[in-house]
Amino acid sequence: MVPPELVEVALALADAAGAAIRPHFRSGLLADDKSDDSPVTVADRAAEQAMRVILAERCPDHGVIGEEFGTADRGASRYRWVLDPIDGTRAFITGRTTFGVLVALTENGVPVIGIIDQPITGERWIGVAGEPTRFTGPLGGSAGCRACPSLGQAELSATAPDFQPRYRQAGFDRIRAAVRRVTWGGDCYAYGLLALGQIDVIAESDLKPWDWSALVPIIQGAGGSVTDWAGAPLHLDTSRGDVLALGDPGLLRAALGELG
Amino acid sequence: MVPPELVEVALALADAAGAAIRPHFRSGLLADDKSDDSPVTVADRAAEQAMRVILAERCPDHGVIGEEFGTADRGASRYRWVLDPIDGTRAFITGRTTFGVLVALTENGVPVIGIIDQPITGERWIGVAGEPTRFTGPLGGSAGCRACPSLGQAELSATAPDFQPRYRQAGFDRIRAAVRRVTWGGDCYAYGLLALGQIDVIAESDLKPWDWSALVPIIQGAGGSVTDWAGAPLHLDTSRGDVLALGDPGLLRAALGELG
Repeated sequence: MVPPELVEVALALADAAGAAIRPHFRSGLLADDKSDDSPVTVADRAAEQAMRVILAERCPDHGVIGEEFGTADRGASRYRWVLDPIDGTRAFITGRTTFGVLVALTENGVPVIGIIDQPITGERWIGVAGEPTRFTGPLGGSAGCRACPSLGQAELSATAPDFQPRYRQAGFDRIRAAVRRVTWGGDCYAYGLLALGQIDVIAESDLKPWDWSALVPIIQGAGGSVTDWAGAPLHLDTSRGDVLALGDPGLLRAALGELG
Repeated sequence: MVPPELVEVALALADAAGAAIRPHFRSGLLADDKSDDSPVTVADRAAEQAMRVILAERCPDHGVIGEEFGTADRGASRYRWVLDPIDGTRAFITGRTTFGVLVALTENGVPVIGIIDQPITGERWIGVAGEPTRFTGPLGGSAGCRACPSLGQAELSATAPDFQPRYRQAGFDRIRAAVRRVTWGGDCYAYGLLALGQIDVIAESDLKPWDWSALVPIIQGAGGSVTDWAGAPLHLDTSRGDVLALGDPGLLRAALGELG
């Protein structure tokens, strides 16, 4: 049972990150993500700092792992927060609303709270271990993965064709050939769409813990499956960055067969 | 000078298409775009029919070219409407809001009114020949392309890596290598982002007139350049489907050099 007050903290983190990000969206001139004062860098850092301030106040004993400011593990804390203030930097830079704020809480390395928040459209996915995923937002859709009887009928999504590391390309190419259709782009937003029953398969590699931790309770709570490319559950301390998300868990064996 | 009453007709078309599309977004179960009753097919046809009804009433002498129901040219009409009820079918199918309704009016083959309407987010771009592009919507951003001094600093967007026909692949690969960064996905929405100063270059081939006609007045009215891959203006009767859109017209020579 996940303490409800920790869900409240997670929501406060997402709120704070969104408020820090919104002023910088579609602002600025030439995108320069290497400059310290580019809109995306400023937004990214401001959002993570805002979240860390809240955690320092409300959960001082918890560990924190964030994309921008590294790890404050507090020994082997039972609870560790995993933060990605802007997942989908390229989407943000180009004015697309397919980026998201990712907030996760892990308990002994297992993600038990996950939030995907899209601070521009106002869409938010909330996953809590053992509970059905909640989705709110003004654009339509409702939480719940869809059935998909075979890979041949499946809609696959991937962030970009060149995002797979070389040693994973063959597996990715096999599953890409096995599915019905592929769409590109999306980062965390695509996993959110899988949890709304709009996409059936996402297979990515070389992700960091802050890229995938929040997705786990959201997808599981929507009835889907999320594992590594060997079918093992994702764990903060042991997973190596391969993620396979399926709207219909019945596709697991077939998908692993293509990827393996 | 474009008659203002024709701009009003164009807006009425976009309104009607949006109303026909909205009920079908993120509805349905397994995506099946070949079935006659899939959500995307139903939405696509309903939207184009709604637009044709308005045109038959308000502009009975004008020609109409639409993706779904073909061409009603009315001889060599001075005015021809060019309609794409859902540009970005794959985006629609997967629940993404990067599809759009495209409405264009051509005068003697030259696009003089263009609308990109995103009926889910409420974003709308309005381009009228000789006027500055207008952009309205709740997600932020304002009309106007940005300066970009060189291809090496440019943000390129393309719908998908496998969308270029084979004979255009070499040119596309050269410009892809010359720019700073590539993002995938977007269809018409990416051209809209170019007109908001978020993207610098889009180069695509094998587009149909309903894919590109609406974009021309929008990009030109935002200060950008839109031509074919030889630098010639786009024309309904002579263009063959190659489109090069640049936020900064100063990049034209360099971009043509890579593509040619």
